[in-house]
Amino acid sequence: MMPSTTPSGPVAGFTFAATAAGIRRSGRPDLAMIYSKVPARCAGVFTTNRIKAAPLQLTEPRIAAGRCQAILVNSGNANACTGEQGLNDARSCSRLAAESLGIAEELMAISSTGVIGAPLPMECFEKHIPLLARSLEPGAEQAVAQAIMTTDSFPKLAKIRGAVDGIGYGLFAVAKGAGMIHPNMATMLGFVLTDALVHPDLLRESLRRAVDRSFNIITVDGDTSTNDMVLLLANGAAGNREIAPGTPEGERFVNELTGILLELAKMIVRDGEGATKLVRIYVAGAASAADARKAAQSVATSSLVKTAFFGEDANWGRIIAAVGYSGAEIEADRVEIRFDHVPVVQRGISTGKELEARATDVLKQAEFTVAIDLGLGSASADYYTSDLTFDYVKINADYRT
Amino acid sequence: MMPSTTPSGPVAGFTFAATAAGIRRSGRPDLAMIYSKVPARCAGVFTTNRIKAAPLQLTEPRIAAGRCQAILVNSGNANACTGEQGLNDARSCSRLAAESLGIAEELMAISSTGVIGAPLPMECFEKHIPLLARSLEPGAEQAVAQAIMTTDSFPKLAKIRGAVDGIGYGLFAVAKGAGMIHPNMATMLGFVLTDALVHPDLLRESLRRAVDRSFNIITVDGDTSTNDMVLLLANGAAGNREIAPGTPEGERFVNELTGILLELAKMIVRDGEGATKLVRIYVAGAASAADARKAAQSVATSSLVKTAFFGEDANWGRIIAAVGYSGAEIEADRVEIRFDHVPVVQRGISTGKELEARATDVLKQAEFTVAIDLGLGSASADYYTSDLTFDYVKINADYRT
Repeated sequence: MMPSTTPSGPVAGFTFAATAAGIRRSGRPDLAMIYSKVPARCAGVFTTNRIKAAPLQLTEPRIAAGRCQAILVNSGNANACTGEQGLNDARSCSRLAAESLGIAEELMAISSTGVIGAPLPMECFEKHIPLLARSLEPGAEQAVAQAIMTTDSFPKLAKIRGAVDGIGYGLFAVAKGAGMIHPNMATMLGFVLTDALVHPDLLRESLRRAVDRSFNIITVDGDTSTNDMVLLLANGAAGNREIAPGTPEGERFVNELTGILLELAKMIVRDGEGATKLVRIYVAGAASAADARKAAQSVATSSLVKTAFFGEDANWGRIIAAVGYSGAEIEADRVEIRFDHVPVVQRGISTGKELEARATDVLKQAEFTVAIDLGLGSASADYYTSDLTFDYVKINADYRT
Repeated sequence: MMPSTTPSGPVAGFTFAATAAGIRRSGRPDLAMIYSKVPARCAGVFTTNRIKAAPLQLTEPRIAAGRCQAILVNSGNANACTGEQGLNDARSCSRLAAESLGIAEELMAISSTGVIGAPLPMECFEKHIPLLARSLEPGAEQAVAQAIMTTDSFPKLAKIRGAVDGIGYGLFAVAKGAGMIHPNMATMLGFVLTDALVHPDLLRESLRRAVDRSFNIITVDGDTSTNDMVLLLANGAAGNREIAPGTPEGERFVNELTGILLELAKMIVRDGEGATKLVRIYVAGAASAADARKAAQSVATSSLVKTAFFGEDANWGRIIAAVGYSGAEIEADRVEIRFDHVPVVQRGISTGKELEARATDVLKQAEFTVAIDLGLGSASADYYTSDLTFDYVKINADYRT
């Protein structure tokens, strides 16, 4: 079926398809497939929520087994809190997709995002899964990015190229999410594909490290969903020498992966529900790495800090208070706070009205950094957050009605 | 100065005064004094924020010593993050108040609420503290409640009477707070006065227990301020036999205190910034008391749940997801959720569209209960929360500007 004139895709050996299967009442694209011509090595990270949606229950053990060849993903319905029927439905989708693709069922990953608690409209899946399997093509990655959107206002894709011994490989990632959580819209999803040949241990380690420094340091509303899932598939189509853990090229691979995921993570914050600003919270001078992260996270998730950003108010009192209750070690008279390069707090007290006025100008920007130096040690951490706006309330109060 | 025709106050032996001292630019009342004719036994709970405002640094050790005769409290300025000067200013206020009242300085408690990081306007205090000391009267408790308001839209007072061996005593409490935190407006304050004679150990134990079941189970925005303080003064003016710990009257005293503080705590939530609803989150069937509390708190603080309340959307998916990431032990297929008496989830799945529609009617009320049964054990916990509204964002984005 695939015409020989198909444009080349973002990574060798992967093909894509997406369609409007009628799962969403709006008629928007809502079902997508990603396929590797050969079984790929894989790694995954999954929500820590104790309530796990049916597709995660099915997919998590399969990914743990280390091999995956195709991903079926839908928006419009999370298939979460759907009991035994939900699990049966997920299994049926998986079986049908595997049959349509002619692969073993254990090589299928299933992922869903959308409304919680409603059964999957199986007729949509039964009709469209076989059609999707026949329409796979290398250049349809943009359509996949669009089909997995929920409250996202733009599709989120990123790619990067690397090389080992002069043999180039690609890394491509697609994600959805416009909040760290939408238990209702369920979720942050991310799919990362590479044609590099990567050692299985490195694959798992690199995904864990990269997620920890990208999707795990962003917040829109501080919640964690029932459907969060990030998968990394490596199919080796680039023909490179295997990238092994503990080698310079292994570290490079981790950095490339982190870079591409951080790029997507920032897109998610920028697209945060109702968000008008992307704010980097940078904590330095902490007594420990854990303290730095706690302090950064506490500031990034404070509703009062986030509304002050929306109000373009250089309200460092709320920031210092959020650091104060973060649990991080802190000595009030050592704290320094800057908005970009404008210091507003030194030795724990205000630098005066004039600098605060200059800081207010910094807050008028769409992107800026709040740098907090605790003056106690050398550990640091980043966190990315958005402002809390009228539109956040509007989107989340109105969504289902 | 005190006329003999003064009306009797809420509790014997306590007098009150309040004035507009010019600390707030609006000209609203902003400085108040509470005085006991004899030194009272006392107990206090203070913010756990690592950043403590100057008045807390001064007052906490004094309260720990067990005796207090007067409280000076201002709104409009938190005297937080004001360094050495802030501490000196707090000391000056304390000294001047003690001199004006003719009492030992160690018997003064000082409390402040308002903007962080600005020095106290000392001229206001120097002028008005001596005037306040001369205008104390038993019936001015309402004026005190008004003077400590910040973003509060109504003054918060409550009283109750108890008795030991037929000797009656009063419990009176005044509080401020329209959010669990206003690091900028700083804070939740509570002052509880009783003319009962209470054993010092019981005084401390009862305050700890009562706060844990009142102010510590409410949330408006989940933050903790630099200035939170609740003081309990018992001056023994009722002439009762001392109430001792571990006795039936001791337990009664704890319950009375809890009742009065819970009444104030609910007023604070009802007056939550921009709030239109008071919602009780009741978790039952938890495996442990800690689990019950974690689950209730997680639901009560979720921005997505709170915006759904505002949207009058019986969005149980967000609730179950918040329980799922709370850290509490949970088995998805045992969870039951009711809105007042309407079940929306049984055995972890939806009870159907009809009941969900009836639940939506429950959400249209100004007050309702979300009851979550985890079906695992017998522990339960309450939490009180508000909805997250456009006005919350408006108030907190606009406040300083």
